[in-house]
Amino acid sequence: MIDTQIKKTIKEPRITLVGAGPGDADLITVKGIKALKTADVVLYDALVNEELLEFAPEHATKVYVGKRSGDHSFSQDAINKLMIDYAINYGHVVRLKGGDPFVFGRGYEELDYAASYSIPATVIPGISSAISVPGLQHIPVTHRGLSESFWVVTGTNADGKISADLYEAARTNATVVVLMGIQKLAEITEIFKQESKHRLPVAVIQSGSTENEKVAIGTINTIVEIVEEKKITSPALIVIGEVVSLHADFQPIKEFYEIIAQE
Amino acid sequence: MIDTQIKKTIKEPRITLVGAGPGDADLITVKGIKALKTADVVLYDALVNEELLEFAPEHATKVYVGKRSGDHSFSQDAINKLMIDYAINYGHVVRLKGGDPFVFGRGYEELDYAASYSIPATVIPGISSAISVPGLQHIPVTHRGLSESFWVVTGTNADGKISADLYEAARTNATVVVLMGIQKLAEITEIFKQESKHRLPVAVIQSGSTENEKVAIGTINTIVEIVEEKKITSPALIVIGEVVSLHADFQPIKEFYEIIAQE
Repeated sequence: MIDTQIKKTIKEPRITLVGAGPGDADLITVKGIKALKTADVVLYDALVNEELLEFAPEHATKVYVGKRSGDHSFSQDAINKLMIDYAINYGHVVRLKGGDPFVFGRGYEELDYAASYSIPATVIPGISSAISVPGLQHIPVTHRGLSESFWVVTGTNADGKISADLYEAARTNATVVVLMGIQKLAEITEIFKQESKHRLPVAVIQSGSTENEKVAIGTINTIVEIVEEKKITSPALIVIGEVVSLHADFQPIKEFYEIIAQE
Repeated sequence: MIDTQIKKTIKEPRITLVGAGPGDADLITVKGIKALKTADVVLYDALVNEELLEFAPEHATKVYVGKRSGDHSFSQDAINKLMIDYAINYGHVVRLKGGDPFVFGRGYEELDYAASYSIPATVIPGISSAISVPGLQHIPVTHRGLSESFWVVTGTNADGKISADLYEAARTNATVVVLMGIQKLAEITEIFKQESKHRLPVAVIQSGSTENEKVAIGTINTIVEIVEEKKITSPALIVIGEVVSLHADFQPIKEFYEIIAQE
């Protein structure tokens, strides 16, 4: 009898990876909110909207484990260990991650680490910025007649470099979305110039879905200058492809090229 | 005085495109639920979970405009017209679409049509099956050491064909996700065989995130047979790439190849 009561007070360790979405707090899923409401601990990243922490119970411990570029106060290894420690000692750990846990989010490494301690772990997908941030600007990643596919590539891989996949992507008709590439925008446009795509439409969007959202629309030739003028910085994503021509700000660019063509 | 009162009862027409997510009703966003709660009309697709309709007010009209393959009772043109008619006559139309409105969802066409009638239209992104359905199976679309990008391609384009982009995708290291391709699975595997990728891991997932979920894990060589055995049918997506090797069901396949290699 006493045994049963003790068991009830010791919570079973478990981990839920939750995608928090692109920034707007309302772009988390209903399922993500439900997980937060049963959290004993929330470990959250830099790009997560802190308003979401209010959905966690008052007793829950909220721990910021954000890694900002150049500031490696929390390594992935440290996060993994914290996650396990908290689960064993407190119960339900919600690991709240920006966007979706599996889009350059190292979510699988966390699942794998949990599995190595036999701690049950589940995943609740999130709205990835790759699709939603262009979408909120009414730029569709696919559109009949313009694009039958989209390719999401990292601008900063494990070695800190532009993924080799981007060189391949520049050769294709896919809409190309580059995450974590804003610092290398000039280098990225060079890759497309090598493929003679100087006039391909490009959008750069900073802090999409939030009140700090900033947008630059141009072409491979012009986007670097426009981004500098508008002082657009990280976090930002790059969308490259004909679908960007559907954005209202591309209209004057289109007209400019039409005038040139007539001369 | 009377004028003001009349104006109040005539609702301003407006349209909100809402992504309903992959199937699990809890995978809609909080923002999507808020839009539904203010709907006067909901126009919803075949792959939308009908439980979501309960969030709309009782007075709201709910109209099924699903297009199932082979049954074109509602053309895109008819949906566009209905959307406008309802907005003008009833006010707020929520256009509830499976997944995300811009991932092969023809969302931009609907926005464009609304704009041509000067009816304000906004977008609320949804959880795309392309990322979330593999993720719920603990298959990450990106993973350090295995994949620095993912490429989402349609298996059925406007001409009913496999996108030409898939032939390009088969040559790259990207994780390839094919939507609406299950009917052409044999043809798709042939494309990868042409690139000598016979042993590349493949997952086919039907009705991901729902209680009807079914999963087949194999290689380019074996997946067609496994899918037939498991009687997996539409709606299903195909994930092709080394990341699929992380799925628990791939372990025996890996061991099998290791035994062969030793002989």
